[in-house]
Amino acid sequence: MLEVESKYRSPGNDKVRKALTKLGAKEISSGAMEDVYFGHPARDFGKTDEALRLRKLQDGAELTYKGPRMQTESSKAREEITLRTDNPLAAQRIVERLGFKESFVLRKHRTSFMLDKLRIDVDLVDDLGEFVELEVLTESPDRAMALMETARKELGLEKPEPKTYLELLIEKQSGDKAKRPDAA
Amino acid sequence: MLEVESKYRSPGNDKVRKALTKLGAKEISSGAMEDVYFGHPARDFGKTDEALRLRKLQDGAELTYKGPRMQTESSKAREEITLRTDNPLAAQRIVERLGFKESFVLRKHRTSFMLDKLRIDVDLVDDLGEFVELEVLTESPDRAMALMETARKELGLEKPEPKTYLELLIEKQSGDKAKRPDAA
Repeated sequence: MLEVESKYRSPGNDKVRKALTKLGAKEISSGAMEDVYFGHPARDFGKTDEALRLRKLQDGAELTYKGPRMQTESSKAREEITLRTDNPLAAQRIVERLGFKESFVLRKHRTSFMLDKLRIDVDLVDDLGEFVELEVLTESPDRAMALMETARKELGLEKPEPKTYLELLIEKQSGDKAKRPDAA
Repeated sequence: MLEVESKYRSPGNDKVRKALTKLGAKEISSGAMEDVYFGHPARDFGKTDEALRLRKLQDGAELTYKGPRMQTESSKAREEITLRTDNPLAAQRIVERLGFKESFVLRKHRTSFMLDKLRIDVDLVDDLGEFVELEVLTESPDRAMALMETARKELGLEKPEPKTYLELLIEKQSGDKAKRPDAA
Protein backbone atom coordinates (compact mmCIF):
# COMPACT_ATOMS: atom_id res chain seq x y z
CA MET A 1 0.00 0.00 0.00
CA LEU A 2 1.32 3.44 -0.95
CA GLU A 3 0.50 6.71 0.69
CA VAL A 4 -0.08 9.37 -1.96
CA GLU A 5 -0.16 12.80 -0.41
CA SER A 6 0.16 16.43 -1.22
CA LYS A 7 0.53 19.34 1.11
CA TYR A 8 -0.50 22.97 0.61
CA ARG A 9 -0.07 26.25 2.41
CA SER A 10 -3.52 26.83 3.85
CA PRO A 11 -5.65 29.68 2.43
CA GLY A 12 -6.93 29.91 6.05
CA ASN A 13 -7.83 26.89 8.18
CA ASP A 14 -11.25 28.33 9.13
CA LYS A 15 -12.13 28.78 5.46
CA VAL A 16 -10.97 25.23 4.61
CA ARG A 17 -12.97 23.70 7.48
CA LYS A 18 -16.12 25.51 6.29
CA ALA A 19 -15.60 24.30 2.71
CA LEU A 20 -15.12 20.74 3.98
CA THR A 21 -18.38 20.87 5.96
CA LYS A 22 -20.22 22.14 2.86
CA LEU A 23 -18.80 19.25 0.80
CA GLY A 24 -20.10 16.78 3.40
CA ALA A 25 -16.68 15.73 4.77
CA LYS A 26 -16.75 14.01 8.16
CA GLU A 27 -14.49 15.14 10.99
CA ILE A 28 -12.80 11.98 12.31
CA SER A 29 -10.41 13.38 14.92
CA SER A 30 -9.06 16.60 16.37
CA GLY A 31 -6.19 17.06 18.81
CA ALA A 32 -2.60 17.83 19.60
CA MET A 33 0.17 15.52 18.42
CA GLU A 34 3.86 15.41 18.99
CA ASP A 35 6.11 13.84 16.36
CA VAL A 36 9.57 12.73 17.43
CA TYR A 37 11.95 12.07 14.52
CA PHE A 38 15.00 9.85 14.94
CA GLY A 39 18.37 9.63 13.23
CA HIS A 40 19.67 6.17 12.22
CA PRO A 41 22.84 4.82 13.90
CA ALA A 42 24.51 3.94 10.59
CA ARG A 43 22.67 5.71 7.83
CA ASP A 44 21.99 9.39 7.02
CA PHE A 45 18.20 9.59 6.69
CA GLY A 46 18.61 13.08 5.19
CA LYS A 47 20.50 11.52 2.26
CA THR A 48 18.44 8.32 1.92
CA ASP A 49 15.17 10.31 2.20
CA GLU A 50 13.81 7.96 4.85
CA ALA A 51 12.31 8.77 8.23
CA LEU A 52 11.53 7.05 11.51
CA ARG A 53 8.86 8.89 13.44
CA LEU A 54 7.19 8.27 16.78
CA ARG A 55 3.87 10.07 16.87
CA LYS A 56 2.55 10.60 20.37
CA LEU A 57 -1.23 10.93 20.42
CA GLN A 58 -3.64 11.48 23.28
CA ASP A 59 -4.55 7.78 23.35
CA GLY A 60 -1.34 5.98 22.40
CA ALA A 61 1.34 6.26 19.77
CA GLU A 62 2.37 5.21 16.27
CA LEU A 63 5.83 4.23 15.19
CA THR A 64 6.18 4.88 11.46
CA TYR A 65 8.87 4.12 8.92
CA LYS A 66 8.74 6.25 5.78
CA GLY A 67 10.63 5.18 2.67
CA PRO A 68 12.11 7.47 0.01
CA ARG A 69 9.63 9.72 -1.83
CA MET A 70 8.72 8.98 -5.43
CA GLN A 71 7.93 12.45 -6.81
CA THR A 72 5.04 12.82 -9.29
CA GLU A 73 4.19 16.48 -10.18
CA SER A 74 2.70 18.08 -7.05
CA SER A 75 2.05 14.82 -5.20
CA LYS A 76 4.42 12.39 -3.61
CA ALA A 77 4.14 8.69 -2.92
CA ARG A 78 6.23 6.82 -0.41
CA GLU A 79 6.15 3.54 1.41
CA GLU A 80 4.80 3.95 4.90
CA ILE A 81 4.69 1.25 7.57
CA THR A 82 3.00 2.02 10.88
CA LEU A 83 2.92 0.13 14.13
CA ARG A 84 0.31 1.19 16.64
CA THR A 85 1.03 0.85 20.33
CA ASP A 86 -0.46 1.99 23.60
CA ASN A 87 3.00 2.47 25.10
CA PRO A 88 4.86 5.48 23.62
CA LEU A 89 7.50 5.34 26.34
CA ALA A 90 8.49 1.73 25.57
CA ALA A 91 8.58 2.52 21.85
CA GLN A 92 10.90 5.48 22.38
CA ARG A 93 13.17 3.50 24.72
CA ILE A 94 13.54 0.51 22.38
CA VAL A 95 14.38 2.80 19.47
CA GLU A 96 16.93 4.72 21.56
CA ARG A 97 18.57 1.55 22.95
CA LEU A 98 19.05 0.40 19.35
CA GLY A 99 21.15 3.51 18.70
CA PHE A 100 18.59 5.81 17.07
CA LYS A 101 18.91 9.40 18.26
CA GLU A 102 16.06 11.85 18.73
CA SER A 103 16.77 14.53 16.12
CA PHE A 104 13.64 16.73 15.95
CA VAL A 105 10.36 17.21 17.71
CA LEU A 106 7.44 18.68 15.79
CA ARG A 107 4.23 19.75 17.52
CA LYS A 108 0.96 20.44 15.80
CA HIS A 109 -2.78 20.59 16.23
CA ARG A 110 -4.51 18.51 13.59
CA THR A 111 -8.17 18.19 12.63
CA SER A 112 -8.75 15.27 10.25
CA PHE A 113 -11.64 14.79 7.84
CA MET A 114 -12.68 12.00 5.48
CA LEU A 115 -14.30 12.79 2.14
CA ASP A 116 -14.94 9.63 0.16
CA LYS A 117 -11.54 7.85 0.18
CA LEU A 118 -9.63 11.06 0.73
CA ARG A 119 -8.26 12.09 4.07
CA ILE A 120 -7.82 15.80 4.69
CA ASP A 121 -5.67 17.03 7.57
CA VAL A 122 -6.06 20.65 8.58
CA ASP A 123 -2.90 21.47 10.53
CA LEU A 124 -1.63 24.27 12.71
CA VAL A 125 2.09 23.51 13.10
CA ASP A 126 4.15 25.13 15.87
CA ASP A 127 6.60 27.66 14.38
CA LEU A 128 5.47 26.91 10.80
CA GLY A 129 1.82 27.99 10.50
CA GLU A 130 -1.28 26.59 8.76
CA PHE A 131 -1.24 23.77 6.19
CA VAL A 132 -3.66 21.36 4.55
CA GLU A 133 -2.64 17.82 3.64
CA LEU A 134 -4.52 15.54 1.26
CA GLU A 135 -3.84 11.83 1.55
CA VAL A 136 -5.02 8.61 -0.04
CA LEU A 137 -3.79 5.15 0.85
CA THR A 138 -4.01 3.31 -2.42
CA GLU A 139 -2.78 0.57 -4.70
CA SER A 140 -3.66 2.80 -7.68
CA PRO A 141 -1.78 6.15 -7.60
CA ASP A 142 -3.40 7.50 -10.81
CA ARG A 143 -6.99 7.32 -9.53
CA ALA A 144 -5.84 8.70 -6.18
CA MET A 145 -4.37 11.78 -7.85
CA ALA A 146 -7.55 12.50 -9.82
CA LEU A 147 -9.52 12.44 -6.56
CA MET A 148 -7.00 14.74 -4.92
CA GLU A 149 -7.05 17.23 -7.79
CA THR A 150 -10.83 17.60 -7.52
CA ALA A 151 -10.61 18.21 -3.77
CA ARG A 152 -7.73 20.65 -4.19
CA LYS A 153 -9.85 22.90 -6.42
CA GLU A 154 -12.91 22.70 -4.15
CA LEU A 155 -10.86 23.73 -1.14
CA GLY A 156 -9.01 26.57 -2.87
CA LEU A 157 -5.54 25.09 -2.31
CA GLU A 158 -3.20 27.00 -4.60
CA LYS A 159 0.26 26.85 -3.03
CA PRO A 160 1.76 23.36 -2.99
CA GLU A 161 4.43 22.78 -0.36
CA PRO A 162 6.61 19.87 -1.50
CA LYS A 163 8.78 19.91 1.61
CA THR A 164 7.99 17.82 4.66
CA TYR A 165 7.29 19.55 7.97
CA LEU A 166 10.59 18.17 9.15
CA GLU A 167 12.46 19.81 6.26
CA LEU A 168 10.63 23.10 6.84
CA LEU A 169 11.48 22.96 10.54
CA ILE A 170 15.16 22.28 9.86
CA GLU A 171 15.24 25.19 7.37
CA LYS A 172 13.51 27.50 9.83
CA GLN A 173 15.83 26.57 12.69
CA SER A 174 18.99 27.09 10.63
CA GLY A 175 17.51 30.40 9.36
CA ASP A 176 16.81 31.49 12.94
CA LYS A 177 20.39 30.69 13.89
CA ALA A 178 21.79 32.65 10.92
CA LYS A 179 19.70 35.68 11.99
CA ARG A 180 21.39 35.83 15.39
CA PRO A 181 24.69 37.63 14.64
CA ASP A 182 25.75 37.25 18.27
CA ALA A 183 25.18 33.47 18.34
CA ALA A 184 28.15 31.54 19.73
CA MET B 1 12.27 -2.60 35.94
CA LEU B 2 14.70 -5.52 35.66
CA GLU B 3 13.94 -9.02 34.56
CA VAL B 4 15.70 -11.51 36.84
CA GLU B 5 15.60 -14.96 35.36
CA SER B 6 17.24 -18.32 35.55
CA LYS B 7 16.89 -21.26 33.26
CA TYR B 8 17.30 -24.97 34.00
CA ARG B 9 17.41 -28.18 32.04
CA SER B 10 14.05 -29.72 32.87
CA PRO B 11 13.95 -32.88 35.04
CA GLY B 12 10.91 -33.72 32.84
CA ASN B 13 8.21 -31.24 31.90
CA ASP B 14 5.38 -33.54 33.00
CA LYS B 15 6.93 -33.85 36.44
CA VAL B 16 7.43 -30.07 36.72
CA ARG B 17 3.84 -29.35 35.68
CA LYS B 18 2.56 -31.76 38.33
CA ALA B 19 4.73 -30.16 41.02
CA LEU B 20 3.46 -26.71 39.99
CA THR B 21 -0.16 -27.80 40.27
CA LYS B 22 0.53 -29.19 43.76
CA LEU B 23 2.12 -25.89 44.81
CA GLY B 24 -1.02 -24.05 43.66
CA ALA B 25 0.56 -22.32 40.65
CA LYS B 26 -1.91 -20.96 38.07
CA GLU B 27 -1.52 -21.76 34.39
CA ILE B 28 -1.78 -18.44 32.56
CA SER B 29 -1.10 -19.44 28.97
CA SER B 30 -0.10 -22.34 26.76
CA GLY B 31 0.79 -22.30 23.09
CA ALA B 32 3.29 -22.22 20.28
CA MET B 33 5.53 -19.20 19.79
CA GLU B 34 8.03 -18.23 17.15
CA ASP B 35 10.89 -15.92 18.09
CA VAL B 36 12.67 -14.08 15.30
CA TYR B 37 16.04 -12.61 16.31
CA PHE B 38 17.58 -9.74 14.36
CA GLY B 39 21.12 -8.55 13.78
CA HIS B 40 21.86 -4.80 14.12
CA PRO B 41 22.97 -2.86 11.01
CA ALA B 42 25.98 -1.32 12.77
CA ARG B 43 26.62 -3.28 15.96
CA ASP B 44 27.49 -6.92 16.70
CA PHE B 45 24.82 -8.01 19.18
CA GLY B 46 26.90 -11.14 19.87
CA LYS B 47 29.65 -8.92 21.25
CA THR B 48 27.48 -6.31 22.99
CA ASP B 49 25.28 -9.06 24.52
CA GLU B 50 22.09 -7.36 23.37
CA ALA B 51 19.16 -8.81 21.43
CA LEU B 52 16.22 -7.62 19.40
CA ARG B 53 13.49 -10.21 19.24
CA LEU B 54 10.10 -10.31 17.57
CA ARG B 55 7.93 -12.88 19.30
CA LYS B 56 4.99 -14.01 17.19
CA LEU B 57 2.14 -15.29 19.34
CA GLN B 58 -1.23 -16.68 18.37
CA ASP B 59 -2.94 -13.35 19.16
CA GLY B 60 -0.35 -10.73 18.18
CA ALA B 61 3.31 -10.09 18.74
CA GLU B 62 5.89 -8.54 21.05
CA LEU B 63 8.96 -6.62 19.97
CA THR B 64 11.56 -6.86 22.73
CA TYR B 65 14.94 -5.25 23.28
CA LYS B 66 17.22 -7.07 25.73
CA GLY B 67 20.21 -5.29 27.21
CA PRO B 68 23.49 -6.89 28.31
CA ARG B 69 23.24 -9.52 31.06
CA MET B 70 24.44 -8.71 34.55
CA GLN B 71 25.52 -12.09 35.86
CA THR B 72 24.83 -13.00 39.51
CA GLU B 73 25.60 -16.64 40.42
CA SER B 74 23.01 -18.82 38.66
CA SER B 75 20.62 -15.99 37.81
CA LYS B 76 20.92 -13.22 35.31
CA ALA B 77 19.37 -9.78 35.23
CA ARG B 78 19.05 -7.68 32.13
CA GLU B 79 17.08 -4.71 30.97
CA GLU B 80 14.10 -5.76 28.92
CA ILE B 81 11.77 -3.41 27.04
CA THR B 82 8.73 -4.84 25.31
CA LEU B 83 6.29 -3.31 22.87
CA ARG B 84 3.08 -5.22 22.29
CA THR B 85 1.41 -5.00 18.91
CA ASP B 86 -1.37 -6.76 17.05
CA ASN B 87 0.54 -6.48 13.77
CA PRO B 88 3.60 -8.80 13.65
CA LEU B 89 4.01 -8.21 9.91
CA ALA B 90 4.31 -4.41 10.26
CA ALA B 91 6.75 -4.85 13.14
CA GLN B 92 8.98 -7.17 11.11
CA ARG B 93 8.85 -4.89 8.05
CA ILE B 94 9.76 -1.73 9.98
CA VAL B 95 12.68 -3.49 11.64
CA GLU B 96 13.92 -4.86 8.32
CA ARG B 97 13.56 -1.51 6.49
CA LEU B 98 15.75 0.01 9.22
CA GLY B 99 18.52 -2.40 8.24
CA PHE B 100 18.10 -5.13 10.87
CA LYS B 101 18.56 -8.60 9.42
CA GLU B 102 16.71 -11.73 10.52
CA SER B 103 19.44 -13.93 12.00
CA PHE B 104 17.69 -16.81 13.80
CA VAL B 105 14.24 -18.24 14.25
CA LEU B 106 13.47 -20.20 17.40
CA ARG B 107 10.25 -22.17 17.79
CA LYS B 108 8.92 -23.50 21.05
CA HIS B 109 5.83 -24.62 22.90
CA ARG B 110 5.51 -22.80 26.21
CA THR B 111 3.17 -23.29 29.14
CA SER B 112 3.37 -20.42 31.62
CA PHE B 113 2.42 -20.45 35.29
CA MET B 114 2.30 -17.79 38.01
CA LEU B 115 3.19 -18.65 41.60
CA ASP B 116 3.08 -15.58 43.81
CA LYS B 117 5.24 -13.03 41.93
CA LEU B 118 7.19 -15.70 40.13
CA ARG B 119 6.55 -16.66 36.55
CA ILE B 120 7.46 -20.20 35.52
CA ASP B 121 7.75 -21.12 31.84
CA VAL B 122 7.78 -24.81 30.98
CA ASP B 123 9.28 -24.99 27.49
CA LEU B 124 9.70 -27.57 24.78
CA VAL B 125 12.14 -25.96 22.35
CA ASP B 126 12.52 -27.25 18.77
CA ASP B 127 15.93 -28.95 18.36
CA LEU B 128 16.95 -28.19 21.97
CA GLY B 129 14.59 -30.11 24.27
CA GLU B 130 12.86 -29.37 27.59
CA PHE B 131 13.67 -26.42 29.85
CA VAL B 132 12.16 -24.54 32.78
CA GLU B 133 12.59 -20.79 33.18
CA LEU B 134 11.95 -18.84 36.37
CA GLU B 135 11.37 -15.11 36.01
CA VAL B 136 10.59 -12.15 38.23
CA LEU B 137 10.14 -8.59 37.05
CA THR B 138 11.43 -6.57 39.96
CA GLU B 139 13.02 -3.42 41.30
CA SER B 140 14.65 -5.52 44.01
CA PRO B 141 16.89 -8.31 42.59
CA ASP B 142 17.85 -9.71 46.03
CA ARG B 143 14.30 -10.52 47.12
CA ALA B 144 13.58 -11.89 43.66
CA MET B 145 16.45 -14.34 43.93
CA ALA B 146 15.32 -15.65 47.32
CA LEU B 147 11.89 -16.37 45.85
CA MET B 148 13.44 -18.12 42.87
CA GLU B 149 15.70 -20.27 45.05
CA THR B 150 12.70 -21.59 47.00
CA ALA B 151 10.85 -22.47 43.81
CA ARG B 152 13.94 -24.07 42.29
CA LYS B 153 14.16 -26.56 45.15
CA GLU B 154 10.43 -27.34 45.14
CA LEU B 155 10.51 -28.10 41.41
CA GLY B 156 13.67 -30.21 41.50
CA LEU B 157 15.63 -27.99 39.15
CA GLU B 158 19.27 -29.04 39.47
CA LYS B 159 20.99 -28.17 36.19
CA PRO B 160 21.26 -24.44 35.56
CA GLU B 161 21.64 -23.49 31.91
CA PRO B 162 23.27 -20.05 31.77
CA LYS B 163 23.11 -19.81 27.99
CA THR B 164 20.21 -18.26 26.14
CA TYR B 165 18.16 -20.40 23.76
CA LEU B 166 19.67 -18.36 20.97
CA GLU B 167 23.20 -19.21 22.08
CA LEU B 168 22.29 -22.90 22.44
CA LEU B 169 20.74 -22.89 18.97
CA ILE B 170 23.81 -21.25 17.41
CA GLU B 171 26.06 -23.81 19.15
CA LYS B 172 23.88 -26.69 18.00
CA GLN B 173 23.77 -25.48 14.42
CA SER B 174 27.54 -25.01 14.19
CA GLY B 175 27.96 -28.47 15.80
CA ASP B 176 25.60 -29.98 13.23
CA LYS B 177 27.60 -28.42 10.42
CA ALA B 178 30.90 -29.72 11.81
CA LYS B 179 29.40 -33.23 11.94
CA ARG B 180 28.72 -33.27 8.21
CA PRO B 181 32.11 -34.13 6.68
CA ASP B 182 30.63 -33.83 3.20
CA ALA B 183 29.22 -30.35 3.77
CA ALA B 184 30.09 -27.90 0.99
